[in-house]
Amino acid sequence: MTSSTESTGPSSLPWHLASRCSRMVPSAIREILKLAEQPGVRSLAGGLPSADTFPVEALREATARVLADSPREALQYAASEGFLPLREWVSQRMEAAGLEAPADRILITNGSQQGLDLAAKVLVDAGSTVAVEAPTYLGALQAFNPNEPRYASVAGDREGPLPEAIEALPRGTRFMYVLPNFQNPTGRVIPPARRDAIVSAARRAGVPLLEDNPYGDLWFDEAPPAPLAARWPEGTLYLGSFSKVLAPGLRLGYIVAPRAIYPKLLQAKQAADLHTGSFAQRVVHQVIRDGFLDTHVPGIRARYRAQRDAMAQALERCLPPGSQWQAPSGGMFFWVRLPAGFDALALLPRAVEAGVAYVPGSSFYAAEPDPRTLRLSFVTLPCEQITDAVERLGGALRAHIPAAAHATTAAA
Amino acid sequence: MTSSTESTGPSSLPWHLASRCSRMVPSAIREILKLAEQPGVRSLAGGLPSADTFPVEALREATARVLADSPREALQYAASEGFLPLREWVSQRMEAAGLEAPADRILITNGSQQGLDLAAKVLVDAGSTVAVEAPTYLGALQAFNPNEPRYASVAGDREGPLPEAIEALPRGTRFMYVLPNFQNPTGRVIPPARRDAIVSAARRAGVPLLEDNPYGDLWFDEAPPAPLAARWPEGTLYLGSFSKVLAPGLRLGYIVAPRAIYPKLLQAKQAADLHTGSFAQRVVHQVIRDGFLDTHVPGIRARYRAQRDAMAQALERCLPPGSQWQAPSGGMFFWVRLPAGFDALALLPRAVEAGVAYVPGSSFYAAEPDPRTLRLSFVTLPCEQITDAVERLGGALRAHIPAAAHATTAAA
Repeated sequence: MTSSTESTGPSSLPWHLASRCSRMVPSAIREILKLAEQPGVRSLAGGLPSADTFPVEALREATARVLADSPREALQYAASEGFLPLREWVSQRMEAAGLEAPADRILITNGSQQGLDLAAKVLVDAGSTVAVEAPTYLGALQAFNPNEPRYASVAGDREGPLPEAIEALPRGTRFMYVLPNFQNPTGRVIPPARRDAIVSAARRAGVPLLEDNPYGDLWFDEAPPAPLAARWPEGTLYLGSFSKVLAPGLRLGYIVAPRAIYPKLLQAKQAADLHTGSFAQRVVHQVIRDGFLDTHVPGIRARYRAQRDAMAQALERCLPPGSQWQAPSGGMFFWVRLPAGFDALALLPRAVEAGVAYVPGSSFYAAEPDPRTLRLSFVTLPCEQITDAVERLGGALRAHIPAAAHATTAAA
Repeated sequence: MTSSTESTGPSSLPWHLASRCSRMVPSAIREILKLAEQPGVRSLAGGLPSADTFPVEALREATARVLADSPREALQYAASEGFLPLREWVSQRMEAAGLEAPADRILITNGSQQGLDLAAKVLVDAGSTVAVEAPTYLGALQAFNPNEPRYASVAGDREGPLPEAIEALPRGTRFMYVLPNFQNPTGRVIPPARRDAIVSAARRAGVPLLEDNPYGDLWFDEAPPAPLAARWPEGTLYLGSFSKVLAPGLRLGYIVAPRAIYPKLLQAKQAADLHTGSFAQRVVHQVIRDGFLDTHVPGIRARYRAQRDAMAQALERCLPPGSQWQAPSGGMFFWVRLPAGFDALALLPRAVEAGVAYVPGSSFYAAEPDPRTLRLSFVTLPCEQITDAVERLGGALRAHIPAAAHATTAAA
């Protein structure tokens, strides 16, 4: 009522943040990428596909075609479900991979990140439990966090999450998030028998699955096994993406949802942004409709395989004794565990000084991070720069071998 | 543990929906648009801009240019804030409209619908109060609903929400949502003195403002007054859009946020979908960077003004006596109030039978809908079809004049 309440000082700011904001924190990867942007730093930190793989000419032709043939539809508001011919294409592609996925259970999203957001919005109440691998994709944690879940970290081994750990999940766990193919960050593929065991355990425990598959097409030796969703269609929500096989800047992904939850996901999508850009959807459909990916993706695989090999050789030569890693059979990442006593987060500034950047593994855990881990991308630098970057990394690590690691090495 | 728990029957479906899902319901407009898609129906229901206004040739040139000049950047992951040159363009445009808006307080979104989603995510807790006009944009209610607010409907008159109603809002109201220019659905513009009074009342009540301005450029006689945000920058979150001046299928909008909440909006955006498509952002920037809108938008205004005139004349001639409306001075909509006893929702099927569709006004109220209201778009049909559509509407209404209306007419 008085002029004092009209003060414009900061104390009178009217904003009141929702409680979920306390769970929304800046991305560690984001801050690290800023570090890595310094000139002279060779970054193995990014989660970006190689821009050399972007099909620029095909996109140029497709945009011209779409604007010539259907400009009014491509530029107008459109259905929240997504462009029907694109959903039909996804449907056929999924069915070829062993997953029955009619177009009326497919929802086009702004990259698979939006699929994570919508799934959590529809399935997670504050305080409810969401199960994740340890480690898991940190962007998924960011997408889930605004819905204020409790996390249950599921123990795993080299073949993936352990079925007995899934069966031990709390009753009412809203879903378990799994990235079966060339996981971000570990590069791990879940073999067929473990997939069967995971699905059996999840069914017994009554825990639905959120299956995220952005990297499945980036296999080097053989295609990965059929998805979890093929083993339990009514209990699995499947996410796919065009970001790694075409280009991430188009922001196109998709959800294949069981009928029980498709309508709510669709309503959440409509509330969030009405629909994914119709122009981008039509352009991508124009590019891929006649089998383009069948010739395009093998080229990406060959390129990434050579880069994987270059990094594997350099790691063998340069990392401190006692370091552990496995060469991935697809995807974009090596996951390294340093010897006892190393702290990848604490060492990052030294590595950047030495001209190389990585992502400390601690970012990828919902709880109890392993400070000895780090993630290296092998797809953003050409092979000779990968070798050079890993040499720099090895130099930085060897210059700071902790007492504990010396002891371990001496004892070995 | 037993095979019975592995049953695949519907009773064993593991999904548990979040409580917010009970607030996510199918859009009435969506269902009505399906009705209106029947052949032979002239639809005045849509909220779509005219596809005749889409700058196809400029977009064709811009896409070719972007793919020639910066394909690697346009197709790669990008900053969550949005493309800096586009944010700088928005900044200059806003400052020309009287609103200081540096680029580091601008966030590019997937249409302004996503701005509504992000604002509610960051500001609304379950059970907290959000103030809205009565009537208000129904897409905003849909965007807010997943965050489970209570709504306080603010009484208004022809000049907009009443300041005394704002001062009477409950303490802790998270924000008041206002659409000052050519409001959807009423077409109403808030004059300068009322803007001042609204801002004063909101400051006194400690209620921040969420100002949505998708239609502000579509003025027919004179540009609307300076935005509410220019009168209270630190207490107003401003939403803008390219959907009505370029094309909605690109899904591009923007937020201008006070420094106090920009970081949380940015984190919410990153969690939701990482960033808005970099290709679409660069294409739009390429189109508009050198003043394109200064020649393009006047053409849209002239077209819409002629359509507004055609509808005004037809309404005058065809609506039942006692109907009320005001010719809007911009935007896309007429808001009609039928005489006592009419129910626009109940009459819609009769109107569709007569070959015309509209949106019943009841969809636009958070509470206590006025059943006599309906919204008509004047921009999707050419003038002669508008006349024909309104004649059909008048015929349908006159054929079903209720007893109460007869009585009113007789008494008049």
